[in-house]
Amino acid sequence: MLDTTKDPAHLPTQLIADMGARARAAAAALARKTSAEKSDALRAAARALRAAVPAIVAANGKDMQSGRDKGLSDAMLDRLRLDAGRIEGIAASLESIADLPDPVGDVIDTIARPNGMTLSRVRIPIGVIGIIYESRPNVTADAAALCMKAGNAVILRGGSEAIESNRALHIVLAEALASAGIPADAVQLVPTTDRAAVGAMLQAAGLIDMIVPRGGKSLVARVQAEARVPVLAHLDGINHLYVHSSADPAKAEAIAVNAKMRRTGICGALETLLIDAAYPGARALLAAVAATGCELRGDDAVRALAPEATPATAEDWDTEYLAPVLSAAIVDGPEAALDHIARHGSGHTDAIVAEDTEVAETFLARVDSAIVMWNASTQFADGGEFGLGAEIGIATGRLHARGPVALEGLTTYKWQVRGTGQTRP
Amino acid sequence: MLDTTKDPAHLPTQLIADMGARARAAAAALARKTSAEKSDALRAAARALRAAVPAIVAANGKDMQSGRDKGLSDAMLDRLRLDAGRIEGIAASLESIADLPDPVGDVIDTIARPNGMTLSRVRIPIGVIGIIYESRPNVTADAAALCMKAGNAVILRGGSEAIESNRALHIVLAEALASAGIPADAVQLVPTTDRAAVGAMLQAAGLIDMIVPRGGKSLVARVQAEARVPVLAHLDGINHLYVHSSADPAKAEAIAVNAKMRRTGICGALETLLIDAAYPGARALLAAVAATGCELRGDDAVRALAPEATPATAEDWDTEYLAPVLSAAIVDGPEAALDHIARHGSGHTDAIVAEDTEVAETFLARVDSAIVMWNASTQFADGGEFGLGAEIGIATGRLHARGPVALEGLTTYKWQVRGTGQTRP
Repeated sequence: MLDTTKDPAHLPTQLIADMGARARAAAAALARKTSAEKSDALRAAARALRAAVPAIVAANGKDMQSGRDKGLSDAMLDRLRLDAGRIEGIAASLESIADLPDPVGDVIDTIARPNGMTLSRVRIPIGVIGIIYESRPNVTADAAALCMKAGNAVILRGGSEAIESNRALHIVLAEALASAGIPADAVQLVPTTDRAAVGAMLQAAGLIDMIVPRGGKSLVARVQAEARVPVLAHLDGINHLYVHSSADPAKAEAIAVNAKMRRTGICGALETLLIDAAYPGARALLAAVAATGCELRGDDAVRALAPEATPATAEDWDTEYLAPVLSAAIVDGPEAALDHIARHGSGHTDAIVAEDTEVAETFLARVDSAIVMWNASTQFADGGEFGLGAEIGIATGRLHARGPVALEGLTTYKWQVRGTGQTRP
Repeated sequence: MLDTTKDPAHLPTQLIADMGARARAAAAALARKTSAEKSDALRAAARALRAAVPAIVAANGKDMQSGRDKGLSDAMLDRLRLDAGRIEGIAASLESIADLPDPVGDVIDTIARPNGMTLSRVRIPIGVIGIIYESRPNVTADAAALCMKAGNAVILRGGSEAIESNRALHIVLAEALASAGIPADAVQLVPTTDRAAVGAMLQAAGLIDMIVPRGGKSLVARVQAEARVPVLAHLDGINHLYVHSSADPAKAEAIAVNAKMRRTGICGALETLLIDAAYPGARALLAAVAATGCELRGDDAVRALAPEATPATAEDWDTEYLAPVLSAAIVDGPEAALDHIARHGSGHTDAIVAEDTEVAETFLARVDSAIVMWNASTQFADGGEFGLGAEIGIATGRLHARGPVALEGLTTYKWQVRGTGQTRP
């Protein structure tokens, strides 16, 4: 329990230490639950959410009112809103997570040694996961369910503007999970909106094993800059599409338009188009993008082909627009495209359109990003589209898990060694 | 190149930034080398080391003289010493690393999607690895070779007492690798003994992708406390052996003696023996350990069975002796053993001796350590004994790689997506 006799300045640290210790104990108990027990508990939670629609909508109404009073934008209010349809979506998401295969217990590989010992690497939960998120209350349920399905305890820290909604969702979830035999401390919500609690989570090495930030760039940047705990995240998605001279024009146009315009606000959206100087369809390709209403910012060679393009500045090549804006450049061959991506890419998702297999395979081998694509839209950068089920996020770090991270990325492994009395000579 | 016009206080930071940038460029070139090219270069380096024995021994002689002048202990001087035999050992080690299978390019798994896309996770080098080590100059060659074989550039920072030896080894290695077509900046040695250079490496997030400390506990503790870069390491090896009531007495005695006494100074050595109260051979087991000259520190129940045992204090259960000393306790059944290990273990290596398969499997499942063993000595906790070839270290963190870490742990993966023009609906 929280010791309230201490210096108030240390309260967030104590609060997180207390929650972390309870989470660690819950994780140990949760690691022993069967896949069926975890899935049944998630289905029970989905039923409980459906039954609690009025209470959740009422709590959300308080957040909506506060948000309007504070002058939140319409976009933020929309992200915050819960109604019966959205709560049904959350419940259905819990059920689809319940249906996913459980990675815990999977044997990654086994080594038989000449001395008769066998060694196996077996998947286990990571332990305690911290989720730091902003205004979407659905993260409360989705992230908790994914962490719990992989056997992890979770500490949730949502945005202050969604605190009433998050509390209501958390109470329903925690009670349903506890009724189904899951330790209540397996899913905890930080009860305070004090921003120092975020700092305490970021410093909680040993208490929290991994932190996943879910939200905008400023949140992710703060988490990456301050965290002493490993972070699974991406900061930018400055994604490139390189159209090689061998590209099929129909594929190039369809992929460029889809990658840029299907949804411009997601991290897998295209931001920079690189057209090979030897590609004969450059003019038509640029016209096809411009025809969708997308603003074009080009280098001189692009502007010679697309009169609607404005001049791109140096900054444009390093900008994630998340908007109907595309920077475009003409490049002299694959090496120049690879150089541009190495200099300006963010390691998220980069793609090539080409019919030349050798060029495409070179691109797939040499672009040093979490996801590299050939003749496919960058908008597929998503755990669901990859067939992984739900995702906890997309990671561009170099260790542990990269690209779309789903249940497997929420596990680690241990070595199990089985002998018959072997001693080391 | 290092800009020497700047404030001297920033020199180590600039030095590491410069080395990091050159390492990144070298890593990009190295990632494109074939396995054969990397292995051939390692064999060339082994030949070069053998040809350079006189120069290396001469450089080492300067370190040895400085060490004697500074009053280094005999143990430290022994770790520092290089002679023809030890250099031959280093060369042979490079050749054995050359012979290991190269993990780079391995396909971890492939997903075929209903829309015709295929997604593969392919192993790639991590990028730039930092190695911070103390007085053993062989680490200069071993760690460089392991990192390079897995396609990584490496920045080596050895102890000041071995600087002449490390420089001599590094020059031979770097020249041999460069002659074999490997970028010279793939293996760099921090040229200064300024301790601030270590701090600069620990802060070099984005320049160095992972740091491996190789040395004593104070070095590892500093690295873990200060690093902003992910660290692969273990701090303690407080390893337990639990002897269940069903244990075969011959196995229990052989394993306990081997685990404690084969080599007491390694991280896989046994530190605490837990004997089940229902195990009938406790007296003989304790006598067998004591007969090796090992000091016993026991709880009251142990002291009743082993008169030579002195009383264990609370501190003993949390102590890694790395010496012929063993703490021992009598526990009431497997749950008590699991509780003791959960409270006092360091997550390195814990073992059970039992003939009861169910109890053993429960132990393997529930002990939350990087390595859990059944009827085998904890001294097998070693990459070579696991059949992995050489190891870069043993890790007790929860992410990326755990237990003995060899070439695979020095790689990560990317997603390669191959389509035929797919766009996302």
